[in-house]
Amino acid sequence: MSRLLRIAQVAPLYERVPPALYGGTERVVSYLTEELVARGHHVTLFASGDSRTKAKLVAPTARALRLDGQPRDDLAFHILELARVFEHPRDFDIIHCHVGHLAFPFARLAGASTIHTLHGRLDLPDTFAVFKHFRDQPLVSISHAQRQPFKGLGVNWVGTVYHGLPLDQFPYSRRGGDYLAFLGRISPEKRPDLAIALAKRLGVPLKIAAKVDPVDRVYFQREIEPLLGHPLVDYIGEINDHDKPGFLGAARALVFPIDWPEPFGLVLIEALACGTPVIARRRGSVPELVLHGRTGFIVDTLEDMEQAVRSLDRIERAECRRDVETRFCVERMVDGYEAIYRSLASQARSA
Amino acid sequence: MSRLLRIAQVAPLYERVPPALYGGTERVVSYLTEELVARGHHVTLFASGDSRTKAKLVAPTARALRLDGQPRDDLAFHILELARVFEHPRDFDIIHCHVGHLAFPFARLAGASTIHTLHGRLDLPDTFAVFKHFRDQPLVSISHAQRQPFKGLGVNWVGTVYHGLPLDQFPYSRRGGDYLAFLGRISPEKRPDLAIALAKRLGVPLKIAAKVDPVDRVYFQREIEPLLGHPLVDYIGEINDHDKPGFLGAARALVFPIDWPEPFGLVLIEALACGTPVIARRRGSVPELVLHGRTGFIVDTLEDMEQAVRSLDRIERAECRRDVETRFCVERMVDGYEAIYRSLASQARSA
Repeated sequence: MSRLLRIAQVAPLYERVPPALYGGTERVVSYLTEELVARGHHVTLFASGDSRTKAKLVAPTARALRLDGQPRDDLAFHILELARVFEHPRDFDIIHCHVGHLAFPFARLAGASTIHTLHGRLDLPDTFAVFKHFRDQPLVSISHAQRQPFKGLGVNWVGTVYHGLPLDQFPYSRRGGDYLAFLGRISPEKRPDLAIALAKRLGVPLKIAAKVDPVDRVYFQREIEPLLGHPLVDYIGEINDHDKPGFLGAARALVFPIDWPEPFGLVLIEALACGTPVIARRRGSVPELVLHGRTGFIVDTLEDMEQAVRSLDRIERAECRRDVETRFCVERMVDGYEAIYRSLASQARSA
Repeated sequence: MSRLLRIAQVAPLYERVPPALYGGTERVVSYLTEELVARGHHVTLFASGDSRTKAKLVAPTARALRLDGQPRDDLAFHILELARVFEHPRDFDIIHCHVGHLAFPFARLAGASTIHTLHGRLDLPDTFAVFKHFRDQPLVSISHAQRQPFKGLGVNWVGTVYHGLPLDQFPYSRRGGDYLAFLGRISPEKRPDLAIALAKRLGVPLKIAAKVDPVDRVYFQREIEPLLGHPLVDYIGEINDHDKPGFLGAARALVFPIDWPEPFGLVLIEALACGTPVIARRRGSVPELVLHGRTGFIVDTLEDMEQAVRSLDRIERAECRRDVETRFCVERMVDGYEAIYRSLASQARSA
């Protein structure tokens, strides 16, 4: 089956594709889209107008919504985006949505071959009724753990596809450095306080590259900022894509002490791709992404984290890189989606 | 044309229908629904499960969303509501939506006979593209002034229908009292400060019956609360439907010093129904609702407002009531909507 497909990729409009800085979903949509184009498919990307892609771009808004400081009617732009896709369902063999439940009624009413990758946490009871109502819609999870809250809802899972990275953008660093790295957002559920406590206990330097969202500003000022004066702790703010591989590759380990069921910790595989092992708490997708004792350590307590740092010599950096090449490269992700696209498109043809 | 119609009324889910306290849209939907039922139509009301109606009630949520204190995914419930309506479009001769642009793609993709009453302000440029895209959708404005920001968009206006009141719920009060009344929300665009300034200048008592939304709490504390200590000013908080006619009917006049283009000031006709004249600033729908010199005064400045209070003796309370009986009673509103329903339903049959 090497037939080329006409594929729509429907991205959220909050960040451009790929994002300038933070933005996991739009980043993954970009990796996926560019690889599909490279394979010869006819891809139309629905995304903000400042996106950069080799696909055909259809933009319901000139600029990504989150960058325009003013308050905006996000919903109006996403309705417009989905209308543009689903009013011409025959233009596509498959429509791949990354915008959550808003796309469900469009897909059903248009009778279009559609899959929805769910990028967020699913343990939000307010959404259960809408997922149940649309339980025929083909859903893709980004980890097995992500599905857990939907047990018993009877939704139509058609696969789990792990995120994958373009490895040329994450060069392997054979030798790490001496510091622990924390990368992402400063927020209570990311537990930067635990990373700082770990560094102090062990007397090891910690570098924090993280943004602070407006909603987390009070938490940052009250709980985290007072801890940043310590000589071992270096807070460097938000970093861009260009600086990220260097920051990760030069670390001794990535610390990921999360306290929420993160459906896929993208930074885990970014660190591993650079050869840097990860120390991650046992929540959400962590047990699927980390090979305990081979690419890092899965931990529960601060004591476990201390023990893990002391055991880092047992981890081979080459093994970390190898695991990403095998399980978390963009080619592997796109193989997964292509198989689902072909299966659904052929069902639609024979229907 | 006395044929009975199968009608869906699609209400927002934020307040029950009718609301316990504040909530203009859900209140109007209730008046409309009950009168349609009284006329013999087969009406299905889509609304929160705690609504009270003689129509058939279909509830995508057990309780109104705003009363449940917790943060909620409002969108999920409204998607579910619209899916339930538009997945069975042949069950209805007409679907009447009160939920804004979210309903547009449902109506178009389902090919259903639908009208949308727009209840909010329309001067929000973020929404222009979505209205333009769906410019075939039949829209009803609640005043002529409301349409102004859409000039040139080419949308499909099928009528203006003023809100109407069930007059038995607003008994006429032949004699007013000595105080000025302010009723609604405490917020900068409602200008309660002007009402207070007016009372002080004239030495006339003012009663304020108003709620304070969380978003307006700082404004209330900084700008309004310090003014409430004055012996002429009586702040009585939010009042319920039962107490409202008494509060309005016993006033000398309602003061409505708004500083935004309010598309329909429901409280204006509530006061007039009780026989109480209104003093309202020339914004939005005010010039359509108030007959200057007959049911009250249309003003621009604080000086105009002073002059208006001094001229109140020229207004006959009976004339205020009469104007509501003529132009703003529920029967008149439902006549307006019935005519639009029949016109669209007959177009659909002949299409």
